[in-house]
Amino acid sequence: MTQISHADLTDYEAEFEAPLELDPQAQDLLFREARTANTFTDEPVTDEQVKAIYHLVKWAPTSMNNQPLRIVLVRSDEARARLVSLMGDGNKAKTEAAPLVAILAADLDFHDELPKIFPHFPGARDLFAGNESAREESAKLNAALQIGYFTMGVRAAGLAAGPMTGLDAAAVDREFFPDGRHRTLVVMNIGKPGEDAWLQRLPRLGYDEVVATA
Amino acid sequence: MTQISHADLTDYEAEFEAPLELDPQAQDLLFREARTANTFTDEPVTDEQVKAIYHLVKWAPTSMNNQPLRIVLVRSDEARARLVSLMGDGNKAKTEAAPLVAILAADLDFHDELPKIFPHFPGARDLFAGNESAREESAKLNAALQIGYFTMGVRAAGLAAGPMTGLDAAAVDREFFPDGRHRTLVVMNIGKPGEDAWLQRLPRLGYDEVVATA
Repeated sequence: MTQISHADLTDYEAEFEAPLELDPQAQDLLFREARTANTFTDEPVTDEQVKAIYHLVKWAPTSMNNQPLRIVLVRSDEARARLVSLMGDGNKAKTEAAPLVAILAADLDFHDELPKIFPHFPGARDLFAGNESAREESAKLNAALQIGYFTMGVRAAGLAAGPMTGLDAAAVDREFFPDGRHRTLVVMNIGKPGEDAWLQRLPRLGYDEVVATA
Repeated sequence: MTQISHADLTDYEAEFEAPLELDPQAQDLLFREARTANTFTDEPVTDEQVKAIYHLVKWAPTSMNNQPLRIVLVRSDEARARLVSLMGDGNKAKTEAAPLVAILAADLDFHDELPKIFPHFPGARDLFAGNESAREESAKLNAALQIGYFTMGVRAAGLAAGPMTGLDAAAVDREFFPDGRHRTLVVMNIGKPGEDAWLQRLPRLGYDEVVATA
């Protein structure tokens, strides 16, 4: 399967590439050559690699620095089997086979950390403690931002990410977060891409379909 | 204000940097030296720069390639004034002064694009058409992932991003998306950082506070 790399850019897109400061190889690594992988090699993904990814992406911004993303690395065969059973049919085989599977969830009780991570505003915790729905909304929004950053971090590590939302998220919550205080947003397969890892690259919306001016 | 750059990494973090393929300068540009800016220079942000950012980040993944993020560049003085009036008090002055302000919203009717952007599954549109709540959930989750990617794209362009959630989002929806089919998630100031652009860097959660193993 062909990948779109720097050399393959259309003239149209290359024209707009000029203003970017990030070097073209890094652009390829993070955005253009990187693809959602559907198969992986057997090469393991180590805790050291995940630590490197975390310590890079942790710096990216969240609302009031609230950092609600929580990650469960599904390492045991038993946990993997439980998770696979809760994935959508189209996602079971690849989730079974990936070198590493991570559950990416929002912590609804992120506000308990605010006195430590947003210390200059002592009232922050209580502000959220009294408003469960605002807390859930902020947890989900910011954890999703962090999943975007994490995806870039996985790619920065030279690995392919296979993020999935086709799963029984409520059941994953019950199985993996028995405290009832987390919301699973994405399950991500991670590893080196294997044979036939890529589906055909799907079309993206045009600039004028996405960006308007007021 | 000091920034944390590659050279300043603690031994602890530098130890975990080894496995990353992305070069350290790019890591700094996107994650470590990049900071949420609170002041900007007068240098304008051009449409050409925004196009370059979009054509880079459009490749990053969304569920079923649904790409629900929509962006309004607030270019006119009149629109800027309307938006500023809907920002939280702490965000008004910087939103008034930033070279470019972008409204980042989720399109609840993204499913109308699926026949074009997810063409191999002809039933995709109808699947979502019948389930408004699933559609809103997917729109918000995936638009937030895309805001994460967009933030990285702004930084890739050598610009600073100032993402904000302190605003009257429902009122911004009414003012800027009169079709009632969009949900504003983030308003982002964009430009070259100015004098005293950075607040003190806030603490990040430790690896073991975020990542668990099952």
